[in-house]
Amino acid sequence: MNSSNIEGDHLQLLIDQQAIQNCIIKYCYYFDTNQPDQLVQIFTDDASIDYGPEVKTLKGHPEILATISHGLTHTFAATSHHVSNFMVEVTDSQSATLICYLYAWHQYKETGNVGYLWGQYSLHLKRVRNHWKICDLVLRGTATQDFHRANMHSIGRMN
Amino acid sequence: MNSSNIEGDHLQLLIDQQAIQNCIIKYCYYFDTNQPDQLVQIFTDDASIDYGPEVKTLKGHPEILATISHGLTHTFAATSHHVSNFMVEVTDSQSATLICYLYAWHQYKETGNVGYLWGQYSLHLKRVRNHWKICDLVLRGTATQDFHRANMHSIGRMN
Amino acid sequence: MNSSNIEGDHLQLLIDQQAIQNCIIKYCYYFDTNQPDQLVQIFTDDASIDYGPEVKTLKGHPEILATISHGLTHTFAATSHHVSNFMVEVTDSQSATLICYLYAWHQYKETGNVGYLWGQYSLHLKRVRNHWKICDLVLRGTATQDFHRANMHSIGRMN
Repeated sequence: MNSSNIEGDHLQLLIDQQAIQNCIIKYCYYFDTNQPDQLVQIFTDDASIDYGPEVKTLKGHPEILATISHGLTHTFAATSHHVSNFMVEVTDSQSATLICYLYAWHQYKETGNVGYLWGQYSLHLKRVRNHWKICDLVLRGTATQDFHRANMHSIGRMN
Repeated sequence: MNSSNIEGDHLQLLIDQQAIQNCIIKYCYYFDTNQPDQLVQIFTDDASIDYGPEVKTLKGHPEILATISHGLTHTFAATSHHVSNFMVEVTDSQSATLICYLYAWHQYKETGNVGYLWGQYSLHLKRVRNHWKICDLVLRGTATQDFHRANMHSIGRMN
Repeated sequence: MNSSNIEGDHLQLLIDQQAIQNCIIKYCYYFDTNQPDQLVQIFTDDASIDYGPEVKTLKGHPEILATISHGLTHTFAATSHHVSNFMVEVTDSQSATLICYLYAWHQYKETGNVGYLWGQYSLHLKRVRNHWKICDLVLRGTATQDFHRANMHSIGRMN
């Protein structure tokens, strides 16, 4: 392999890392602007979302769309999902994982109260027709305050 | 176009995206360290800043400098502007847009009280003599707490 | 120098910037998941950490490991360190600086109370056998709330 090929590989990795981060950034944007039809397009057709041990894991576009649409219309008046601390691993040319941090602010429609979540997203992604898509998303909670769920998946802090 | 040219274009895009993100990161840094003379240099000469419907839109370096200097000296004792969720679009070789998220902490000089803002910045940028500069900045609020303004531009959440 | 060399330099800079950001992102992750043995590997052998004027500056792996292990076992029940606003300067091929913002949530083991910090990390880094490592980390506080320390190094806000 010559130096030009190696550089091409390095460049492709940076482009992939950026595209992978953009998946969760767009997820947050479409969630916070209540655009569930756009949001579901970031996921593979048979993707799963696990929001925690108190919620049934969502499977496939119709279930993801129905559940998130319902939440954005009936549960939340407003939300703001701030993601950071991106840790991307491109495992092969067609698959990747991403762990990132989440600080999320939610206002509930019924009460007007505000709930907070500090946590992480763990994602698996696949390249589908040259676009990275999320095939698996797990939400993990480090802590919550006045949140609508009591139990969250752990971030795996050692004891 | 050969593969080397395409790689050059991809690389240039990554460099531009980084430079564009750095504009708002520097804006935050110069704001939070009270360096308005440095801050204004990130903007084009005729740039505008729209901080919300309660405030007159600032136009051009002298107005931006005067208003921000006044705020940093008289309104705020300390601030911390955390930006994330960068969504960059390079629309052509000389222009770009950026939407990013903001979580901002402010302490007021007069009372010592703390105000919070969760929101977004929407920017237009131009390349001026090979440096990206902000030509238009709009602040949007998802939510505020104990903040010095009651009404903010909306992030455009669908109802 | 031909265009291919210049592109190679630009690409290398992007790769270095990414690797440098990853150092502090990994620091946060190993801190928040209580993996001090992994955390210390991000630092050069003789690195120093200055957490503030109330704490003795830590010097070298054994001291860093002992102090952070103790804190993660006895002081904190859980933590979440959200970093953003990365400002990287690669000063030469072997050294770099990084300033980034920090929003940190901490729960104390003894009381269950929660403390907050808004601030910055200032880092010096060196390239050691082709890996970027932190040789100097300084924590600066813009503000704290219910935090276990009263005095922090300043972010250098002008008066």
